Parts: sequence; C-alpha cells; structure tokens
Amino acid sequence: MKKTIITISRQFGSGGRSVGRQIAEKLGIPFYDKELVEQIALDSGFAPKFVEEHGEHSPGKSILSYAFASAGVPGVMNGLSTADFLWTIQCNVILQLAEKGPCVIVGRNADYILKDRKDVLNVFVHADMDFRADRIVRLYGESEKSPVARLQEKDKRRSVNYQHYTGRTWGDAENYDLCLNTAVIGVDEAADIVVNIVKNTK
Amino acid sequence: MKKTIITISRQFGSGGRSVGRQIAEKLGIPFYDKELVEQIALDSGFAPKFVEEHGEHSPGKSILSYAFASAGVPGVMNGLSTADFLWTIQCNVILQLAEKGPCVIVGRNADYILKDRKDVLNVFVHADMDFRADRIVRLYGESEKSPVARLQEKDKRRSVNYQHYTGRTWGDAENYDLCLNTAVIGVDEAADIVVNIVKNTK
Repeated sequence: MKKTIITISRQFGSGGRSVGRQIAEKLGIPFYDKELVEQIALDSGFAPKFVEEHGEHSPGKSILSYAFASAGVPGVMNGLSTADFLWTIQCNVILQLAEKGPCVIVGRNADYILKDRKDVLNVFVHADMDFRADRIVRLYGESEKSPVARLQEKDKRRSVNYQHYTGRTWGDAENYDLCLNTAVIGVDEAADIVVNIVKNTK
Repeated sequence: MKKTIITISRQFGSGGRSVGRQIAEKLGIPFYDKELVEQIALDSGFAPKFVEEHGEHSPGKSILSYAFASAGVPGVMNGLSTADFLWTIQCNVILQLAEKGPCVIVGRNADYILKDRKDVLNVFVHADMDFRADRIVRLYGESEKSPVARLQEKDKRRSVNYQHYTGRTWGDAENYDLCLNTAVIGVDEAADIVVNIVKNTK
C-alpha cells in the first residue's frame, strides 16, 4: 500500500529531526514537530514548554506532574494524571493530523498511535554514542552534565515513556519498517533513502 | 570508513538470504552462507547438516549436543560443550573470511563476531508475520506445524543463541547500521538500498 504518512522515532542527537524535515521538504508535505507540541498545548491548556518537556518523558517522573494530578482539575483532566491526560490529547492530535493527509511526524510515539493505519511508514533513526555526543555539543552547546550522560538520560526517558504507553520495546527493529544509523549512513543520505522508499510504495 | 564487509542477520522467512545474495552479486564479492557451514564443518569435523542445525540454535538444547559434550573427545573439543566448540570454530572461520577481503556473510552472529572491525556494515532483515508465513510455505512447502509456529520457533532459537553468545538483544536496532522490513520495502529494493549505502561509504 502507498505510504503517505511517515513517522520518525529517534535517539536524541541522531539527527532524526533533520532527517524528518528533509523528507517533508523533498516530498512537499507538512512536517509536524514543534507544531505538534503547539497543537497539544492548545488542546490541553498547558504551556508549550510544559508539553515539550513532559510529552515524551517518563510518566509521573516530575513533582509538578504529581502536583497537577493531585490538584485534579475536574472536568478538564477527567481524573487522569497529567502524563495520561497529555497522552490522550497527544493521541487525538496525531490521529487528526494523519486524517488530514500526507505528512511527516517526529517523535511522540506516533508509530504506535497510528498502528491501525496501513498508509504509514515507520522509521527509527539512531547513531553511535560518539556521533551523537559530538552533535549535541555542536547544536546545543555544553552543559553541566557530560554529553554522554545527557544522551543516556534522554534515551532512558523516551524509552520508559514508550514502554509505558505502548507496551513495546523502544528501538526494537520489528516496530519499524526502516532503522538507520546516521553515523554510518549520513543524515542527508538517510532522508534520500526514506524518500525513495515512499515513492516506490504502491 | 569504507564498508566492504556486509553482515546480514535475518528473521526466518524475511528474504534476508536473497537480499544478501543480490548484494554480493551486484557488488561482485563472495557470498558466504552454505559455504560458511561447509567451512565450519570441515574445521570442526562435524557433518555440514549437524553444523547447519546447531550453529544458530539455542546452546545445549539438543540431546545429541549433551551426548557429544559428555563424551568429551579430549584434545578436539577441549572440554567445551558441542555448542561452545562450534561457536569457537564459527568465530575463527568468520574472522578469517573477513580477513580475506570484501564479502557478504549471512547469519551466524557475524555482526557480533566482527564487532572490532571498522569496515563492516551490519544489516538486519525482518518482515511482518503474514509475509514470512506466505514466503516459507511457498519456498519450503507445508509441514505438520503451522507456518506461524515454525517462524516463532526458529526466531526464538536464533534469538536465544544470539543472546547467549553476544549478550545483546536480537533485533535491537542499535546493533545494526540498517534494519529493513522486506514486507514493505521489497527484497530487491532492500538489496539496492544496501548496495547504494556501501558504494557511498568513504
């Protein structure tokens, strides 16, 4: 079946977002990344920064999350924890975006959320630790933590979030149609491979 | 670095062997599959059929394996179990083949055995259960067991063998540079993607 919706799951620092952006540009279709955060923020009433920080992270990890949940705004969060409430909104937003037509969606467990559609190509972008460490320092600068510690923490949080909401294992090749190591293949080349696959599907 | 050795790990029935053969033909380099079994048989003194059946399977699963191990032919098996003895021979054969130059190696945990070389591209080929079930019936015919049961059994044995000898998780995208779902991408197209990646590496 023709694949018109591309989901990109990615290890932090692997260049997955750049791969996604290039695919969208080359295919001339919308690219949902920050836009997704903004839509979820709009639908949930949370600040975009809060959605960005919590939407892909371990459920119930943050004190703030517990505080919100225990405050339990009736009729808005329906008794759900903040994390579960955000997850519900996230599912709705992603399902609606996919209904609108061809697009590229980065992160937010979209591969799982769209699992019942046949027109979705699921891509996982990863890379060797050295490559990712160099990349995040170049893109985001140094911080108090070592680049490797930052990568491990972010990977861990995404992995726990994915496992919690999908019951699947993060990074298991079987969950994706294509997994690419950008340290070996290159970011631009990875995008070209996905574009060709999409064009070849019937 | 230029990648000249390609290892193909594959789910049973995914077409991984065909992908490997096509890559070898298109690049004009040797293809090691049955040849590998024959070389291991020659070096170990076991029959090729025995090597084929035990080389990628769970260690110590077979009664025959225990029987051989307890018989403990001194100076030949060095007190190792049959499975461990085969593994040692398999490592040596694969390391020597890689030394000989560019090639494609299918199965037998070659990705792990060659992990210290920088000129290796590791590929994992998998596919949806329906696709694989159709394919094994077409290629190998029906048997007493259902195609799905045959697939699950074979996957399980390869997975346990991989975990036992490498300490890694079978099918984890991080172990490979490229993972391809042939049910979506196609066997021929998967081979072309790998050939292009190999040609593009510098």
